Amino acid sequence: MTAVPSAKTPAPSPAGPVHPGPAAHAALRATARATVTAGFWAERRRVNAEVSIPQGPQRLAEAGNLENFRLAAARATEGFQGAFPFQDSDVHKWLEAAAWQLGDPATDTESRDELTSRITEFAGLLADAQEDSGYLNTYYQVAKPEVPHFTELKWGHELYTAGHLIQAAVAHHRTTGSRELLDIAVRFADHIGESFGPEGSGRPHDSVDGHPEIETALVELARETGESRYTELAAYFVDRHGGALGLTGDKGFDRPGYFQDHMPVREAEAVTGHAVRQLYLLAGAADVATETGDPALRAAVERLWTEMVARQTYLTGGVGAHHSDEAFGQPYELPADRSYCETCAAIASVQFAWRLALLTGEAKYSDLVERTLYNGVLCGVSLSGDRYLYDNPLHVRDGHADQEGDKPRRVPWFRCACCPPNLMRLLASLPHYLATASADGGALQVHQYATGTVAAPLAGGEVALRVETDYPRQGRIALTVTGTGEEPWTLTLRVPHWSADAWTVTVNGAEPAAGVAEFADGWLRLDRAWTEGDTVVLDLDLAPRFTLADPRVDAVRGCAAIERGPLVHCVEALDQPAPPAGSGLDDLAVDLAAGLGTVDRPELLGGVTTVTATARRRPRPDTGASAPWWPYRPATAGTPAPAGDPVTLTAIPYYAWANRDNGAMRVFLPIAE
Amino acid sequence: MTAVPSAKTPAPSPAGPVHPGPAAHAALRATARATVTAGFWAERRRVNAEVSIPQGPQRLAEAGNLENFRLAAARATEGFQGAFPFQDSDVHKWLEAAAWQLGDPATDTESRDELTSRITEFAGLLADAQEDSGYLNTYYQVAKPEVPHFTELKWGHELYTAGHLIQAAVAHHRTTGSRELLDIAVRFADHIGESFGPEGSGRPHDSVDGHPEIETALVELARETGESRYTELAAYFVDRHGGALGLTGDKGFDRPGYFQDHMPVREAEAVTGHAVRQLYLLAGAADVATETGDPALRAAVERLWTEMVARQTYLTGGVGAHHSDEAFGQPYELPADRSYCETCAAIASVQFAWRLALLTGEAKYSDLVERTLYNGVLCGVSLSGDRYLYDNPLHVRDGHADQEGDKPRRVPWFRCACCPPNLMRLLASLPHYLATASADGGALQVHQYATGTVAAPLAGGEVALRVETDYPRQGRIALTVTGTGEEPWTLTLRVPHWSADAWTVTVNGAEPAAGVAEFADGWLRLDRAWTEGDTVVLDLDLAPRFTLADPRVDAVRGCAAIERGPLVHCVEALDQPAPPAGSGLDDLAVDLAAGLGTVDRPELLGGVTTVTATARRRPRPDTGASAPWWPYRPATAGTPAPAGDPVTLTAIPYYAWANRDNGAMRVFLPIAE
Repeated sequence: MTAVPSAKTPAPSPAGPVHPGPAAHAALRATARATVTAGFWAERRRVNAEVSIPQGPQRLAEAGNLENFRLAAARATEGFQGAFPFQDSDVHKWLEAAAWQLGDPATDTESRDELTSRITEFAGLLADAQEDSGYLNTYYQVAKPEVPHFTELKWGHELYTAGHLIQAAVAHHRTTGSRELLDIAVRFADHIGESFGPEGSGRPHDSVDGHPEIETALVELARETGESRYTELAAYFVDRHGGALGLTGDKGFDRPGYFQDHMPVREAEAVTGHAVRQLYLLAGAADVATETGDPALRAAVERLWTEMVARQTYLTGGVGAHHSDEAFGQPYELPADRSYCETCAAIASVQFAWRLALLTGEAKYSDLVERTLYNGVLCGVSLSGDRYLYDNPLHVRDGHADQEGDKPRRVPWFRCACCPPNLMRLLASLPHYLATASADGGALQVHQYATGTVAAPLAGGEVALRVETDYPRQGRIALTVTGTGEEPWTLTLRVPHWSADAWTVTVNGAEPAAGVAEFADGWLRLDRAWTEGDTVVLDLDLAPRFTLADPRVDAVRGCAAIERGPLVHCVEALDQPAPPAGSGLDDLAVDLAAGLGTVDRPELLGGVTTVTATARRRPRPDTGASAPWWPYRPATAGTPAPAGDPVTLTAIPYYAWANRDNGAMRVFLPIAE
Repeated sequence: MTAVPSAKTPAPSPAGPVHPGPAAHAALRATARATVTAGFWAERRRVNAEVSIPQGPQRLAEAGNLENFRLAAARATEGFQGAFPFQDSDVHKWLEAAAWQLGDPATDTESRDELTSRITEFAGLLADAQEDSGYLNTYYQVAKPEVPHFTELKWGHELYTAGHLIQAAVAHHRTTGSRELLDIAVRFADHIGESFGPEGSGRPHDSVDGHPEIETALVELARETGESRYTELAAYFVDRHGGALGLTGDKGFDRPGYFQDHMPVREAEAVTGHAVRQLYLLAGAADVATETGDPALRAAVERLWTEMVARQTYLTGGVGAHHSDEAFGQPYELPADRSYCETCAAIASVQFAWRLALLTGEAKYSDLVERTLYNGVLCGVSLSGDRYLYDNPLHVRDGHADQEGDKPRRVPWFRCACCPPNLMRLLASLPHYLATASADGGALQVHQYATGTVAAPLAGGEVALRVETDYPRQGRIALTVTGTGEEPWTLTLRVPHWSADAWTVTVNGAEPAAGVAEFADGWLRLDRAWTEGDTVVLDLDLAPRFTLADPRVDAVRGCAAIERGPLVHCVEALDQPAPPAGSGLDDLAVDLAAGLGTVDRPELLGGVTTVTATARRRPRPDTGASAPWWPYRPATAGTPAPAGDPVTLTAIPYYAWANRDNGAMRVFLPIAE
């Protein structure tokens, strides 16, 4: 049977990657609405809208994801396409991306019609494939019809896939009011609710999905529908962790920690296991805590975030140090060359941090969101929008291409294609991360800076801003009040941690009057009775800087990275002076004392500001017959390796690397002795 | 049919892990014979003889390796035991170990009878299983009877397994004169010779085995039997590399470089791919060059060794930076925590370097042999002789046991059991690496120092020495001439590179007379007319020292290791002062200026000299609510992390690590700022 799309179409709900509805214990509300009309993110989002998202249906058709729904609709039991039980989720994530894109006023009519048509087509496929019970997972319907549902939860991804369907449905309903997807999702969610449930409910499937995602999705569905039972089910799944899967091994997939099933979430002291699983779970736990106010759960998500950032996060915001198991490593284990930093894990980190920002109101979470968006996430898609990276190293050695081949690093799609549609939905929903309103209705927060508009319903009525900036190329952000409401309110601007000691602000061209501006913990609060046309100009410090890691991080000890504003930079071999034969990036050591410069390069990589540094090129060791044959040397000799002549290095933003060749690259550069 | 052991038993050939016979272009000859009667290596070899080797048959029975021969003898085609096509090689390597052990005069009658009985039993199994053609590989006979022989060379290991059979047979024939194994091996070798052959021979299987080993084995068989056709076949296999397997991929096992099949051996500029495969191949190439004098092949093996040591070798002599593919990494890619350093690769490095020592006469090769034996090899077996390591990290983090479980790191046997019997055969044949005679018969070289005897046939007749030393616990080596021959000869002693600037020598208690002693390139030559009872005392510098890596090695930049004599030391967590909660090895930074001390600890780990160092313990970063949340810091702040109070570290020899617990360990220690 098919699901019948309802004719009932409620008014579009405002915006936000977290639903603006019930969030009882949130400090900040996702009720603000932002647009991005020009500048850095507008260009990246234009490519997403014009290249990435339109290519999605073709890629999904080629990979067989769409055929799987046709097979399921025909009740076929062979012919399943693709390698994974979560193939459907690629379609759901594309649907979510398309739905968010429909919510963007910049989307033109032709694109809107095309997206709407595709969504209707796919929704039809889903509806036809959905079983009478509400169950929908083409892998179990076509490839494994003999397996009872929800009995292979460790690897089956049935609830994970359902979660992505629900997220797509919520996005579609919010941006269009259509129930085309929502009715399908609600039926599946209700079927899950009937199959699982709180202790004592007598429901049969007393476990959790091996891959979280259902948790955030259910809370969002509760917010979208007003049905709190979905939140209760999410809380049930969050709290089942800690032995639900019955694992006892100590390696890889036999290890309960891989699935974050080694202990209850609220007792965990550190992130562990598969990075995307861990962060989707914590985002769900944060959502539950936001709805329930559960203090132990809130303490746990705050503690785990703090621990993750302090010991297990790359400079780019990327996470996941192990290729093996796509997993978090041990504390301070952050290899630059073997950083896994899965694109999806960076996206998951953004989702987790954003939920903490809303829950706590603290600026540091949006600091990490910014860092991760500009670096750990954006590196995952080419500037052209049609090629992707799954894992994101911070260092590629000179010998890499010799040994691994010189084929392009970025590829059009993956066999496990989780990352591309995840990038699409994140970029399509990016404006939602820009602004919030405080729970008490007295303040508007601007978290991220992009040219466009911001509006929010505050206690005194609707307020609005126009934002103009060339950030992050320039540090100036100009905000003009275009809607004042009827009461004074606080305009709250995030000052990133790297600019906390060097920023200036003016209101209508002058220093703010006494008592108007207060700066604390990353928030600059401007508290006054605003008049239409009032302008606030915030100048952030974009001077390039050298950055060191915690001295416990073995991988980059004795090294410095180059950053400018929110952008981590990197050095690609092809931008550097031609090295002598046999030499390369490995031979360069940066001279901190020589300082850094910047060069505007509008013609390069879509327009970047490069940072220049001075380095010394160490001569390669002599390997001739009379040379010392052993490369290790006594420390007592006290002779540092010869420093070599100075050369000028050019560092580009990390997000733009690997768009030209497959050569060597470094984020952290050895410091000259 | 069964092979009939020949009654013809030639006199035992003298000694040497390379046969002392034909080696036309060798600078040094393996005609010297050494015994080890007391001290460091005597104790390790005693454990090998009393525990490791005697346990072998039981382990082989449990793993099913012996049953496979019975199945093959019964022409069974099911029931094959074990996971790998090279299961037989575990038996062959144990047979080689047992054969070398029979060559040790210290082996008592009871052990000798037991070994002989076992060898006869196993030889019977092999003879019964061998096909009429001479073919013998139980995997293909039992598990894959439908596959024509030598058609799955990429993974089949048929020639690799044959190589280990031949090596065992050569060892057995050399130490006992028995043809029990040799006849089996010769029949198989001849079958291989009929199946493969030089270009134009019209033989059908125009390829190479995916895993070298047959090359060294065939050259040894040629030396043992005097049949040069085996050397020709070895040369043929060496020269087939460079496209023989028809691979074109660029990842893992599809990559010709994994099999060293990307280019001819004589053209290669750097070691690559699977480390054991690469080094067995190069050992074979060195053997061929030693027999043929081929200058291009000699230049290649020397060049590849130099390149490997300069850029791809760990301080321990271990090689293989990648767990993935058990492979060499890229130049300077030597992660301490993820060092693969397979025990077998270290053994292979010893074999390769020893062949270069014989070929060239240069001392540096025996320097590396020594370093690798004491560190990269010996770490592979527990002090108790019954537990093994397959891969050998140089760093285990504090969090390791928390995440990976606290089970013992060393295990009794492996599913892929290549390393244990490889260790057994190396330790059993260790005396062969101690001394050589120069090709011109004018000099005796002592390469490694151990209490015992050395004898060699020189031009003027048999010469002999008694060696007394507590090396490497003490640096004094006393050598007494016990056999002089009839002409003057040169006593040549290797002075390790770390002692090249600080050693002394006396002859009969006095400085050598003018013109007697010459030191160059690691060799101390004492040239005089020796009298029985002459004593030479060499004192090497065992002062503990800090050692730095090439500054291009990212993994240990800003770190120093501790060494004493040939021993690399390491710091295990359990020997250090109890750290504050949450702190550990990761927080310690060593103070180079504070120097190093030594403590004799006869009760510890079988008797070791520990090295003490002074370190600073960095306080753990505050992760409280008011602490900086982001662990990366501006370099311009210029404030190194706080140094903390001094603590005294205890460093044990690396070979003895992981004999007590599964805790944290470091070889390279961060240098205090």
